[in-house]
Amino acid sequence: MSKKYVFEFGGGKADGKAEMKELLGGKGANLAEMASLGIPVPPGFTITTEVCNYYYQHNKSYPPELEAQVKQALANVEGIMQAKFGDPANPLLLSIRSGARSSMPGMMETVLNVGLNEKTLKGLIAKTGNERFAYDAYRRLIMMYSDVVMEKAAGIEPEEGRGVRVQLEHAMEKMKKKLHVVQDTDLTAADLKKLIKIFKTKVKTIIGKEFPDDPYEQIWGGIGAVFQSWNGKRAISYRRIEGIPDEWGTAVTVQSMVFGNMGDKSATGVAFTRNPATGENVFYGEWLVNAQGEDVVAGIRTPNPLNMKNKTEDTKEIQSLEEAMPPLYKELANIRDRLEKHYTDMQDIEFTIQEGRLWMLQTRTGKRNGPAAVKAAVEMVREGLIDEATAVLRVRPAQLDELLHDMLDPAEEQKARVLAKGLPAGPGGATGQVVFTADDAAKWTKEGKKIILVRHETSPEDVHGMHVAEAVLTARGGMTSHAALVARGWGKCCIVGCSALDIDTNKKVMTVSGRTIKEGDWISLNGSVGRVYEGKVPSVRPDLAANKEYTELMGWADKFRKLGVRTNADRPQDAAQARAFGAEGIGLTRTEHMFFGPERIKPMREMIIAEKEADRREAVMKLLPFQRQDFMGLFEAMQGLPVTIRLLDPPLHEFVTLDSDQIKELAKDLGTTVKKLKARVESLHELNPMLGHRGCRLGIAYPEITEMQARAIFEAAAELTKKGIKVYPEVMVPLVGTATEYNHQEAIIRRMAAEVMKETGVTFEYLVGTMIEVPRAALVADDIAKTAEFFSFGTNDLTQTTFGFSRDDIGGFLPIYLQQRILPEDPFQSLDERGVGQLVEMGTKKGRSTRPKLKVGICGEHGGDPKSIDLCHRVGMDYVSCSPFRVPIARLAAAHAALINK
Amino acid sequence: MSKKYVFEFGGGKADGKAEMKELLGGKGANLAEMASLGIPVPPGFTITTEVCNYYYQHNKSYPPELEAQVKQALANVEGIMQAKFGDPANPLLLSIRSGARSSMPGMMETVLNVGLNEKTLKGLIAKTGNERFAYDAYRRLIMMYSDVVMEKAAGIEPEEGRGVRVQLEHAMEKMKKKLHVVQDTDLTAADLKKLIKIFKTKVKTIIGKEFPDDPYEQIWGGIGAVFQSWNGKRAISYRRIEGIPDEWGTAVTVQSMVFGNMGDKSATGVAFTRNPATGENVFYGEWLVNAQGEDVVAGIRTPNPLNMKNKTEDTKEIQSLEEAMPPLYKELANIRDRLEKHYTDMQDIEFTIQEGRLWMLQTRTGKRNGPAAVKAAVEMVREGLIDEATAVLRVRPAQLDELLHDMLDPAEEQKARVLAKGLPAGPGGATGQVVFTADDAAKWTKEGKKIILVRHETSPEDVHGMHVAEAVLTARGGMTSHAALVARGWGKCCIVGCSALDIDTNKKVMTVSGRTIKEGDWISLNGSVGRVYEGKVPSVRPDLAANKEYTELMGWADKFRKLGVRTNADRPQDAAQARAFGAEGIGLTRTEHMFFGPERIKPMREMIIAEKEADRREAVMKLLPFQRQDFMGLFEAMQGLPVTIRLLDPPLHEFVTLDSDQIKELAKDLGTTVKKLKARVESLHELNPMLGHRGCRLGIAYPEITEMQARAIFEAAAELTKKGIKVYPEVMVPLVGTATEYNHQEAIIRRMAAEVMKETGVTFEYLVGTMIEVPRAALVADDIAKTAEFFSFGTNDLTQTTFGFSRDDIGGFLPIYLQQRILPEDPFQSLDERGVGQLVEMGTKKGRSTRPKLKVGICGEHGGDPKSIDLCHRVGMDYVSCSPFRVPIARLAAAHAALINK
Repeated sequence: MSKKYVFEFGGGKADGKAEMKELLGGKGANLAEMASLGIPVPPGFTITTEVCNYYYQHNKSYPPELEAQVKQALANVEGIMQAKFGDPANPLLLSIRSGARSSMPGMMETVLNVGLNEKTLKGLIAKTGNERFAYDAYRRLIMMYSDVVMEKAAGIEPEEGRGVRVQLEHAMEKMKKKLHVVQDTDLTAADLKKLIKIFKTKVKTIIGKEFPDDPYEQIWGGIGAVFQSWNGKRAISYRRIEGIPDEWGTAVTVQSMVFGNMGDKSATGVAFTRNPATGENVFYGEWLVNAQGEDVVAGIRTPNPLNMKNKTEDTKEIQSLEEAMPPLYKELANIRDRLEKHYTDMQDIEFTIQEGRLWMLQTRTGKRNGPAAVKAAVEMVREGLIDEATAVLRVRPAQLDELLHDMLDPAEEQKARVLAKGLPAGPGGATGQVVFTADDAAKWTKEGKKIILVRHETSPEDVHGMHVAEAVLTARGGMTSHAALVARGWGKCCIVGCSALDIDTNKKVMTVSGRTIKEGDWISLNGSVGRVYEGKVPSVRPDLAANKEYTELMGWADKFRKLGVRTNADRPQDAAQARAFGAEGIGLTRTEHMFFGPERIKPMREMIIAEKEADRREAVMKLLPFQRQDFMGLFEAMQGLPVTIRLLDPPLHEFVTLDSDQIKELAKDLGTTVKKLKARVESLHELNPMLGHRGCRLGIAYPEITEMQARAIFEAAAELTKKGIKVYPEVMVPLVGTATEYNHQEAIIRRMAAEVMKETGVTFEYLVGTMIEVPRAALVADDIAKTAEFFSFGTNDLTQTTFGFSRDDIGGFLPIYLQQRILPEDPFQSLDERGVGQLVEMGTKKGRSTRPKLKVGICGEHGGDPKSIDLCHRVGMDYVSCSPFRVPIARLAAAHAALINK
Repeated sequence: MSKKYVFEFGGGKADGKAEMKELLGGKGANLAEMASLGIPVPPGFTITTEVCNYYYQHNKSYPPELEAQVKQALANVEGIMQAKFGDPANPLLLSIRSGARSSMPGMMETVLNVGLNEKTLKGLIAKTGNERFAYDAYRRLIMMYSDVVMEKAAGIEPEEGRGVRVQLEHAMEKMKKKLHVVQDTDLTAADLKKLIKIFKTKVKTIIGKEFPDDPYEQIWGGIGAVFQSWNGKRAISYRRIEGIPDEWGTAVTVQSMVFGNMGDKSATGVAFTRNPATGENVFYGEWLVNAQGEDVVAGIRTPNPLNMKNKTEDTKEIQSLEEAMPPLYKELANIRDRLEKHYTDMQDIEFTIQEGRLWMLQTRTGKRNGPAAVKAAVEMVREGLIDEATAVLRVRPAQLDELLHDMLDPAEEQKARVLAKGLPAGPGGATGQVVFTADDAAKWTKEGKKIILVRHETSPEDVHGMHVAEAVLTARGGMTSHAALVARGWGKCCIVGCSALDIDTNKKVMTVSGRTIKEGDWISLNGSVGRVYEGKVPSVRPDLAANKEYTELMGWADKFRKLGVRTNADRPQDAAQARAFGAEGIGLTRTEHMFFGPERIKPMREMIIAEKEADRREAVMKLLPFQRQDFMGLFEAMQGLPVTIRLLDPPLHEFVTLDSDQIKELAKDLGTTVKKLKARVESLHELNPMLGHRGCRLGIAYPEITEMQARAIFEAAAELTKKGIKVYPEVMVPLVGTATEYNHQEAIIRRMAAEVMKETGVTFEYLVGTMIEVPRAALVADDIAKTAEFFSFGTNDLTQTTFGFSRDDIGGFLPIYLQQRILPEDPFQSLDERGVGQLVEMGTKKGRSTRPKLKVGICGEHGGDPKSIDLCHRVGMDYVSCSPFRVPIARLAAAHAALINK
């Protein structure tokens, strides 16, 4: 038997089914499914995606079997529809549509009304008794076909605005002008008849070929045009963005036409089986009488509410389908129930009513926003439609962001003027008055103002201004820049890398998109998509505590997941926030942020400048009480849970970026000369600080820093233990590349623990472990794990060193890399599984080869990225750690990973 | 039977042998070997290294069996020597010496004349009839023993210059002064007798204990002192430097004393079985009559030539041993012959003649310099002593350096004043007048002067000055800094990181070690050890071409080695030099050096500044003729051999480091504004340029650069092919981390090749491949090798990214890391086998898993490092590539690798 390339559907049965999306595309598979269910779908057939691949592998030709199979399928459609393709007396008309495995909306071609010519036109008129409708259908065919099929087949690549379609539209406009009418519908049958003549002449002139009258030529032209459009520019670039492989191919669905525009007993509409904005279990949709589907979608006419429940204050006077055609609405509502039960998920459907008869044209899984996804999933469990695991999988982890952050009111946002677009570094929405320095931010907020801090880029010295700001906006930097990291850590709205901003910090003014924005002017930010708006755009705050469905869903997620979820937090309030979000400990405390307070930076600088070890030790010991206090706060906020504290990591020069006045002052303070101080600061300058004297290299060169930090941790632990508070400090050595480095630092840490226990008479548990953040650490993880009790993958730095990418400098080439698909995505956002992931897996395996119970986690930015969390689950990590506002996302993603990889 | 801890030797037989160095130490094993051969050695016994380990594992106590075994061995020695330990009538005296598996000269303790006390002293006088000799021996014992054994056992740690030994020496000096004598030998027996009394009183006062009279207490004290000294400060730090494991331990050899200082029929000497400075097959040594061994070694007296052949112009009047004691010399020469035949290698021996009887005290493999090693090895093959493989293994590859470079005349060097010490970046010696800028270097050399270029550090813009300089000296930078790389590439003498230099480039003066060196002052450099001398120190040039032994040895090496050896060269003259040294192709041409000529840098800068692609393309195409010329030169120099050319690698900002005048001028030249130009230059600034927009990231962002370079390569290939010159270009894409990056660049390169072949009608072979220099490339090497035809490991960058070390900034912590043994060695000098080596092996294996015939090489600095070459051999690489002057070293190292890993 020859290979089956054509799958039929209609008349209550079908060759295909919903599971055959790979072969039939989403549209074709679901049409088949509906047909099998006995739901009324216009009969038709689907040519498989295999034909698409064949087509491209065989110089744009078809398998020999195809023509006969198409003919046979067509005959069957004719049988069901009681009409014949090309029959002047009783013509069957067809639509030809694309359909890939996953939806690529608007990226490929469609041809409608195929089968019309001068002869069948007459038949259509006779059959429908609607002359205007028939001429309009023919007019539409010519416009569509000449554009989609003929112009492309002729190899014409018209300049922008010079294509055949545009010229035909011009002709139509010209006629409307001449007749002083506005709407297409104002053209009469006679007008359209004339227009068709003009169209045909123009097509001949522009393309150099007659418009084909042969219905079979039309059908094969249409099929070819759809396959052709799989490799159109739009489709290719969409696939690049969405990561859809070229070899999937598209199917072609040929289906008998039904018309919603045959008069007042005809209609068309789109609907969701539940409200996609709220998740409410209400049939939700829009419809138009006497219209074609494209009219609803294109928004040319404002559609009507589907039923009484859908009515709003604005639409209460408008007739719903429920009122206009009660039996048909009832039939539709019935189909809606059957589809939801059958698919056990919210569906997005299209329907057409042709002269009082309902036809379903499409069903697919309905897109919904975060709150809706949560509500629908939980309610479906309550309704017994799905089980808990399915409900958990129904919500994309990233969708939770919408439940966690304030967001701009979507309706208001649509009306606002976009000033610029940047990288969506911190989700949520915010509105405030612009200030350009951290000090101004502090001052203005003290006066009770809401501000947005705008900077070229931020540094640790801006942190106090960032903290009080509603949002942070920077002209430079990427998704993992300082601004992005800090803002995201606080769940603060943030847009970075907004290169259109031309900021003059001295004059406190910026220009953007031709506008001048001064200090105090209002702007609004949508940090979830990276859009900056002029003026005030109101925000809305989702109430998470009151969201019972959210709480229930997260409970299920926690039940399924295997991975622990911790948070990255440097301050007690962040730790508390994360704990409220469900964090089970701290996976990363960056101690360096603790050294920037005015009373702390001075001894820090003294320490850095000191030439002798004794002076350095004296200076560093001044920091001990502050550090102890810091750690006590964190331990208290996290009592009963582990707290991982990373020792000082950044290169020292970060603490001594000083202008000449500051140098003078500091020199005076420290009793040294400006020249000496300058020389020391200069000597700290590095060509590649990322690869320089930082991490444990500091603790090895200056063991007194490690001593002080370890002592502060253990003194804090002792003091709280005395009070009956349970603490579990985990001391983490950064940037280890050799076991010797780790062992050097570990010895100091354990010595300090022993000293503190002896001095205080208090014992407490603690662990010592290390970051794995340079490739060598993963390569020799078996050595390191001999002494290290835990590993935490620092995948930010590991990504930098594995690729040899500086995340501060990646802006020079990353956009080109993404655009040209050199990289599928930004490896700092989603863990590069093939490369960096290989090291993560190797590090985990090797580590556990010498210490089977080694605790393994991740504390890079990837710890909050769902795709990366899936990898962490597969690798067998114990936990992921992420910023507080990503904790719920990580919990859900961990549950997904556990369910998917079962 | 109880475990054997004591191995005896003497009287023509021995328990041990030369192969038992692990157990008996080098000294003990060779004494046993000589005894077995019937060579006269003073009888004795060796306590094994196992006892040393036992000693430290058991709280400094001995195995219970030891005492009995020592007693038995001592009795046997007494039997052979016909004397008794501690016998007042006929006393046996002993020496107690250390002996580790490999020589640790002077790092551990020795005690001589053990067994002397007031009673045996009398016996010794009676036996020898030499009162003065006996008192002197006793005096020596007290000095040595009180210092080495007593003071340490008492736990006294005297301040510098306050130890017992120094105080005894002072007492002796005081007596000599009082008696108005100069030499120790001027003290009479009576004087010494008095001195001994003073000594004993002093010892009692200082240490609080009587000097022990019991010979057995003396012997056990001595044994303990030797074991104790294994963990002395000096010994530990020596082991750290030499990489000797702590667990080897030392053996202790107890041997009957023989005296070369018993009168005119006694003598002592050291000798080499061949000349260790030239390798000549001449018995070579020094001797002293009536002296102890330490007198020869310490250089207190100037020793005499051993034989007639050793005499020089200066020593022709001095009596040789050959003349003074002909029969004994003959016996010694005879032993020399037997030892060389037996050990089949040059020996370093010590002997003593006691009253007309010859005793051999030591034999070990003689240290020799490079030329001597080559000559001796080849001559030994000719003599039938060893085979060719052994000869090849006898020369350490690094020793060849001495044959390749001019070197300071060693005799003159000894007399010169050392100004400073830096890192030995480029071996050899040089002398010249100091200049401080590259332009001055060029100017002065044009005037016929020999200059040494002194800089803080060098940049590509200094290259013209570096090239004409005799040597380069920098205050900053490490072994792989720009200066080091470039100088080494040219075989030029170079010292870097000489931090003692305080350079004022404006004033053209530097101060160092309290001296002020002005422009034009003479200095001299020994780049092999990193020493800077004041004034002129003459150099000597080894004549390689005339060195038949070198040529012969290298021929054998080439026969044995499996690895190919290529060179890294950017200029035809370097390529030719390397070819003369035996290079079999170019493994790395860095094209960026080609863009710094004045007529080239301008279009380069135009290209960088250009905003539009068309302008950039126009600018870059101006470079095409220059590049083509560059490549033609290289291809011609290397005709018949492959030439690997790496596409542009460094970040663009390296080409636009401009001062404000240059910016003004360039802005004018390019028809742009200073502001715009500044902004562009500023925009190229990167925080971590090492990890920034460089390597193939440039070629992907600016494909026209790749097009131009590929075209230049292929046009050059076509033109030479037309002339009948065989060319094998291998185009290398730098800094690849993903197969997509490589494929992008490869497509351009192959397109250019096809275009050039079509345009010229000439066909030629070529390969396209890539550097493997970021960890990800090794991790996904199987992907990359699907399309790449060769890999070249760029282990400089791979080391940087694997460790996360910037080689420019490593100076901040590397010294501490080496000192504290966090790292065993600088990973930029010798490939880190455990970490980076793992990636090299993985990359090779994975690459060959998809392309079994993948050509694999190395072109990092490690390609010239013998230890790293051994790894490259084991990994199964096809070739190593190194700077021209390291080619012979690499050839020899490759032969070693092949022979050792057989």
